[in-house]
Amino acid sequence: MQKIAVIGTTSWGITLGVLLGQKGIEIRIWARTEREAAKLRKKGLDQAHFPDIKLPEQILFTSQIDEALDEVDAVILAVPSASMRQNISQAASHLQKSTTVISAAKGLEVGSNKRMSQVILEEINPRYKANICVLSGPNLAREIIQNRPAAAVIASEDKNTARKAQKLLTCQSFCIFTNTDVIGVELGGALKNIIALGAGITDGLGYGDNAKAAFMTRGWTEITALGMALGANPLTFSGLAGLGDVIATCASPLSRNHFVGTELAKGRNITDILESMTEVAEGVNTTLVAHNLAHQLGLEMPITEKIYQILYENADPHQAALELMGGNTRHELAGRRWQLFSLFRQKKRSSITQN
Amino acid sequence: MQKIAVIGTTSWGITLGVLLGQKGIEIRIWARTEREAAKLRKKGLDQAHFPDIKLPEQILFTSQIDEALDEVDAVILAVPSASMRQNISQAASHLQKSTTVISAAKGLEVGSNKRMSQVILEEINPRYKANICVLSGPNLAREIIQNRPAAAVIASEDKNTARKAQKLLTCQSFCIFTNTDVIGVELGGALKNIIALGAGITDGLGYGDNAKAAFMTRGWTEITALGMALGANPLTFSGLAGLGDVIATCASPLSRNHFVGTELAKGRNITDILESMTEVAEGVNTTLVAHNLAHQLGLEMPITEKIYQILYENADPHQAALELMGGNTRHELAGRRWQLFSLFRQKKRSSITQN
Repeated sequence: MQKIAVIGTTSWGITLGVLLGQKGIEIRIWARTEREAAKLRKKGLDQAHFPDIKLPEQILFTSQIDEALDEVDAVILAVPSASMRQNISQAASHLQKSTTVISAAKGLEVGSNKRMSQVILEEINPRYKANICVLSGPNLAREIIQNRPAAAVIASEDKNTARKAQKLLTCQSFCIFTNTDVIGVELGGALKNIIALGAGITDGLGYGDNAKAAFMTRGWTEITALGMALGANPLTFSGLAGLGDVIATCASPLSRNHFVGTELAKGRNITDILESMTEVAEGVNTTLVAHNLAHQLGLEMPITEKIYQILYENADPHQAALELMGGNTRHELAGRRWQLFSLFRQKKRSSITQN
Repeated sequence: MQKIAVIGTTSWGITLGVLLGQKGIEIRIWARTEREAAKLRKKGLDQAHFPDIKLPEQILFTSQIDEALDEVDAVILAVPSASMRQNISQAASHLQKSTTVISAAKGLEVGSNKRMSQVILEEINPRYKANICVLSGPNLAREIIQNRPAAAVIASEDKNTARKAQKLLTCQSFCIFTNTDVIGVELGGALKNIIALGAGITDGLGYGDNAKAAFMTRGWTEITALGMALGANPLTFSGLAGLGDVIATCASPLSRNHFVGTELAKGRNITDILESMTEVAEGVNTTLVAHNLAHQLGLEMPITEKIYQILYENADPHQAALELMGGNTRHELAGRRWQLFSLFRQKKRSSITQN
């Protein structure tokens, strides 16, 4: 029988565990403490986050890393990006030659500016490099656990790894596509949270769907530019892990990053907002990393810059929005020719987040 | 003083009239009948469509074409696409050398498969060709008349015409960009209604934001492909008149095309739905035209094909959605390489909708 370990009791980790358990895969979910594991074993899922969801019998919660990882076909890392390094380093010695390592985290590491697959590679046996893959796409957990239809992308530099993971993860209502552009798929999933924060601000300010659509269009162009500068294929940003994820996250009140944006627009302080939340809004750290990368690359990212100022320098959201609208160049494609021209000379302009 | 004629008492025509009247431009709105003009003069705006909106003094409603068009700087054609030819042919003899002709319609002509600027050019003095421009973008009328912020694109083959129209139309809350890609701006505004119909169906079926985002992403790719085959610049489809309009129209219950989609998903008959509406849902005709163009060009458009079958062949929306989800190729970018490769050999593969 197939066996998968999920590292992390986040909503996304539990959702993937339930989904895969439902299709008969044996699931081990690794909790940080025995207390948490015991509580999940005894009381089942928290009904506030998972209303009416029953745990399939195939799921075991454990705090023992060896029990979680013993003989598994794949490990899914569904932890906040900030704790990815610590988690994978604990798991590393339990990985085997045949274990697929799937990152399901959508963020970047503060300080190193690195993507999750890069962090993972630094912590595991480098001979297992081809086993690494990343999962991303428009995947609001609460809809997926209700078995509503969704699609995602699994990317690996190794096509066989991607296909193996695709087979493991595909469910009737969860359609998985493969891609070899790991950089693009990871950056799409991470950077879209910056735009979701901004869309939340736009909604919080009551600007309406016209302004929000214009904002999302410009925001998506901006993160595509950063992605390309870091070596991503622009077509990935036009796909599920780029545009698809931007659209779902900006649309949904279920998104934590969108929620942070709406609260900021109401005038609440970022520290207060984050303290009141039970799960991490990755966009807050990602904005910091993207802001640093843009400076290092000499890339203009006016939207990211404004959101950085709102998050880290107490800028007023309404004022920031006015400045963004006023600062437009008046020919639509001006300054965007790079998008066309750089498509074919996509050689990395920088190796900052690359190996 | 500047003077603009608006042809058409559609929501969009009246909205543009009010907006421009508010900034002091003298506005003549041409109504089809004297009865309609007299009613608007006497009773003002229909409060169901325009709650709390007062008409600026600068607006005159008239059924006399010569009164409407006398000495105007610009004519805005805000009529349903199906009646564009009839309207512009009536107005043609009143146009002067200096009159800017702005199409604000977002549709294609059934039968000829032509864009609105092509229809206009066929009906006016060909020496005035450089005066033609088109307005498009994420512009839900009800938000714009409330002075909520929005952005749009004005495109003309003649840069001076575009700049002149930009100056005329720009308002404090309505930001206008210029573009020279008339084909792309027109096709973006028209074809996006096909995706809006589908997004309405997705919402009506209760599929959620993940599925809707995946649908919109694939739909946008599909209409971009058709646009490119017809000579549009793909960057235009990445901008306000393409992606921006897709996002706003698919998001909003204010969209008539989205409404038609949700009603179809509930099992209502298309004839019933259209009969119950007071304004035109352009997407119904546009789907027919796009379907015909795709066949002529040999272009695969699976989403457009399904929506065509739902609208014109009584296909079941739920079944169509299942088939679309099942018919996926499993590598994300498979079949999309054309997007990359055709960027630089963008020479028109067809002149079907071109002059």
